[in-house]
Amino acid sequence: MKHIMYLDHAAATPVDPVVLDEMMPYFLDKFYNPSSPYAPAVKVRQEYIAAKARIGRCLGVHGDELVMTAGATESVNIGLSAVGDGVAAVGATEHASVLQAATKSGGIIIPADKKGRVTPEALARALRPDVSVISVGLVNNELGTIQPIDEIVKVVQVERARRREAGETRPLYVHCDASQALALLDIKPKRMGIDLLTLSAAKVYGPKQVGLLWIRPGVVVRPTIVGGGQEMGLRSGTENVAGVVGFAVAAELAAKRRSGEVKRLRNLRDAMQRELEQTFPDMIVSSDKKKGLANFLHVSFPGVDAERLIFKLEARDVMVATGSACAANKGTQSHVLEAIGMSDEAIQGSLRISLGRLSNEENCKEATRLVIEAVRAEYARIS
Amino acid sequence: MKHIMYLDHAAATPVDPVVLDEMMPYFLDKFYNPSSPYAPAVKVRQEYIAAKARIGRCLGVHGDELVMTAGATESVNIGLSAVGDGVAAVGATEHASVLQAATKSGGIIIPADKKGRVTPEALARALRPDVSVISVGLVNNELGTIQPIDEIVKVVQVERARRREAGETRPLYVHCDASQALALLDIKPKRMGIDLLTLSAAKVYGPKQVGLLWIRPGVVVRPTIVGGGQEMGLRSGTENVAGVVGFAVAAELAAKRRSGEVKRLRNLRDAMQRELEQTFPDMIVSSDKKKGLANFLHVSFPGVDAERLIFKLEARDVMVATGSACAANKGTQSHVLEAIGMSDEAIQGSLRISLGRLSNEENCKEATRLVIEAVRAEYARIS
Repeated sequence: MKHIMYLDHAAATPVDPVVLDEMMPYFLDKFYNPSSPYAPAVKVRQEYIAAKARIGRCLGVHGDELVMTAGATESVNIGLSAVGDGVAAVGATEHASVLQAATKSGGIIIPADKKGRVTPEALARALRPDVSVISVGLVNNELGTIQPIDEIVKVVQVERARRREAGETRPLYVHCDASQALALLDIKPKRMGIDLLTLSAAKVYGPKQVGLLWIRPGVVVRPTIVGGGQEMGLRSGTENVAGVVGFAVAAELAAKRRSGEVKRLRNLRDAMQRELEQTFPDMIVSSDKKKGLANFLHVSFPGVDAERLIFKLEARDVMVATGSACAANKGTQSHVLEAIGMSDEAIQGSLRISLGRLSNEENCKEATRLVIEAVRAEYARIS
Repeated sequence: MKHIMYLDHAAATPVDPVVLDEMMPYFLDKFYNPSSPYAPAVKVRQEYIAAKARIGRCLGVHGDELVMTAGATESVNIGLSAVGDGVAAVGATEHASVLQAATKSGGIIIPADKKGRVTPEALARALRPDVSVISVGLVNNELGTIQPIDEIVKVVQVERARRREAGETRPLYVHCDASQALALLDIKPKRMGIDLLTLSAAKVYGPKQVGLLWIRPGVVVRPTIVGGGQEMGLRSGTENVAGVVGFAVAAELAAKRRSGEVKRLRNLRDAMQRELEQTFPDMIVSSDKKKGLANFLHVSFPGVDAERLIFKLEARDVMVATGSACAANKGTQSHVLEAIGMSDEAIQGSLRISLGRLSNEENCKEATRLVIEAVRAEYARIS
């Protein structure tokens, strides 16, 4: 690959060559339909089930509690169907898929604090008796904010106890979209006390359009796609064996590399942040150095047009985003930054920097230098 | 690949190495999110759009009339949502995905004739005024029967005219699942006069979990997966660029090889059929030599247990199915064979043979010899 400075690992990650190597046989000589009856196909089916078990082990759950999907967006849609005839309550800074899926049930938006967090107080206020699912992302995809899931689950437990005592039978489930998190956080949904977990292979150096939904046994969801009855009837369609094997390898690699990567990326991120803060004292930092994910840096230069920055930087082989890729493409202003109360001027001058495996000391230093140069040029232009 | 005799191309096809070659860069250095704003990602987006246009050209439609999905099952589910508040009427021999998706709207089952065809008469009887979508597969996935789409569309046009004259405003759409057909039939949905078309890359030497739904402009479907608004808002989720590029290559290869493959496979299939018919005069042939797809051979040996045949044959490296892979895996009897009025005994003695690119004269001859040997041994065992 050409020498690039890729600062957008939150939007997409390359497939790890080790992952791709393990996927390859399933495109070629192990191409069989896992539902076919003859031995080589049965073997493929076993390897598919084994791949789910491998992912399950990384998460501390059984493989057969996982519904494999075509990505996080689909997982979110199935997960939020646990709402039944109730209402979903979701964080204001959630990904578009969560916000959109929640509107199907007339969703309640839980306001966020300045860092994009759903506070226990805000959640408690949102928990009307008709709420049956809440959905909070583990890591916000623009700010890198890690949600206080422990505290959120405590509030949910209090509400569940209240319902039990009041003789109310409506369940209350917690869905957590952890798509941004798996590369750098150890995710154990049972220990977290949640009921539904969404993950994406595409954000953890696995293939695109491969995701999963973990469902705590007993939680009832509705299939969005019906047919041959694959994935315990919850998601029909011939299994993506190559993709799921790729996800398993990616999840295992993530577990192996996690602690080293957290340290490495935190150092790179902190150095970048320090340099930018020293150069631009008026810069607003919305990511959280201590409590946010180690690879995220969200900065705003009020008065600067971030889109101009992006095009300036791409000409120098620096790839960086203004916000989530989905939103960027629609030309709409970030709902995440609006939700945390940022001024329009600051929103328009925002860059989301997300480091990852393609980042190293050399290209981060060079990227920092080029960002500084580009921001300075923009400030000079408008002053 | 080891020397195998694969007679189950209707269940799964290997990815063509040419297809895989074109997919590879999108896993590795062109991994960008197609919605990201910087130039290399924009280029990936353009290549994604170009891939859709390439598929569109094969079908005689515009690329932006295609919604890319995670496979035929998903396409069918979206396609049948065009039912609105009406009812879907579907053929009795349709794939499980069509039958299941139709039940959402209290689907009407249109009976099939002895070859699995929906006759114009049966369709006309099924077309109640509340029917808004009919769904008929172009090629039946167990028998290879090609449906008389021309005649079906004529009946639909008569009913549409009746509704217009009666002042009824309910639309009537035709959805066609052509998943089994693309390798050997030239599919031009506009010329066919249909409104919705489902295709799968996995059946045409492309990757699994890649499909499409062509939607005639003006036909309204409901998204099953909501979120970032990809695919014109009809199918959210980061695009499967590698998969869709793979589908484009596979579709183009199919077009290029089609007429040669039809002739080649027809000869192989006919020779196999002749040999089996001569050896077993009581054998029932349910595929249609003249009007069915060239690569299908469906035979029944009443009294024989086809599952035993399959296990006997797999030990000799012959891979063959009793019916669709989905149904096989659930251990249920084929609804297709029931629908055409086959006796239980004949159903239980049925083999679906489907040839394809892995078939050649040598391995087909050898497979025929081994099938004959296995069937003879079973007859000897039970007599």
